[in-house]
Amino acid sequence: MDEFSLHPRLAADSHLLLDLPLCQLRRMRDARWLWLLLVPRLPERRELTDLDVPQQAQLMREIDLSSRLLLQVAKPTKLNTAALGNIVEQLHVHVVARHVGDAAWPGPIWGVGQAESRDDTFWVDERQQLLAALTSLAKPGELAISAP
Amino acid sequence: MDEFSLHPRLAADSHLLLDLPLCQLRRMRDARWLWLLLVPRLPERRELTDLDVPQQAQLMREIDLSSRLLLQVAKPTKLNTAALGNIVEQLHVHVVARHVGDAAWPGPIWGVGQAESRDDTFWVDERQQLLAALTSLAKPGELAISAP
Repeated sequence: MDEFSLHPRLAADSHLLLDLPLCQLRRMRDARWLWLLLVPRLPERRELTDLDVPQQAQLMREIDLSSRLLLQVAKPTKLNTAALGNIVEQLHVHVVARHVGDAAWPGPIWGVGQAESRDDTFWVDERQQLLAALTSLAKPGELAISAP
Repeated sequence: MDEFSLHPRLAADSHLLLDLPLCQLRRMRDARWLWLLLVPRLPERRELTDLDVPQQAQLMREIDLSSRLLLQVAKPTKLNTAALGNIVEQLHVHVVARHVGDAAWPGPIWGVGQAESRDDTFWVDERQQLLAALTSLAKPGELAISAP
């Protein structure tokens, strides 16, 4: 397999916000948290060490961008950023807005309870708001996708 | 406060392996996992967004180095890498070797049970082994600390 292919579990649990230069930026469909995923559009990467140095640096830039988005729209107590992959091995990075008193505070969110669902209208409206915020806060070039 | 100062909780729960160019590389004193911490030697950083772009890139390099160390010495099923900070706000990155069937598998390790202690001889021997492995796998310049 030489093509990027999103793991079915990630596809089922999240939706695409937009493609960044390296990663798909996705939103986990769990309304308990404003919870983003970055998934490098590369085949068969499991660990951060499977990225070369420029890809690692770009991933960090996209973590920074995603973090600034959450800081602006969610005003979190703290951000949580993690590459775990014990269940879904495809390399993906969680960036999550945490608040004092949220459903898992101060523990980690993974594996806690059940996802809180919303109807499609909610997710469509939220996506529009997130993309508007992202466009307004991105620095020149941060959203640009160059040809492969 | 303009000086780096290690949070007392991190100081109590871990010991220094060595100083990397940006971070203290530390070992959490919990023998259930080979569990490293990277703590930027900078004052009052909470979020990854509190680092400038070169510092973020350097942090990623040190995450990569720490990851390669764990892959070599622990042969883990999976690495877990995370910046959480819900309890200790000082910016620190966990890099942890996970194995199928370990004390929290496949869940996250944070907040699970009690740390498994070892005597000082164990930690001193382990530190020597980790530093030897690190020295042998580091690429030129990766361990170099330039003057501030």
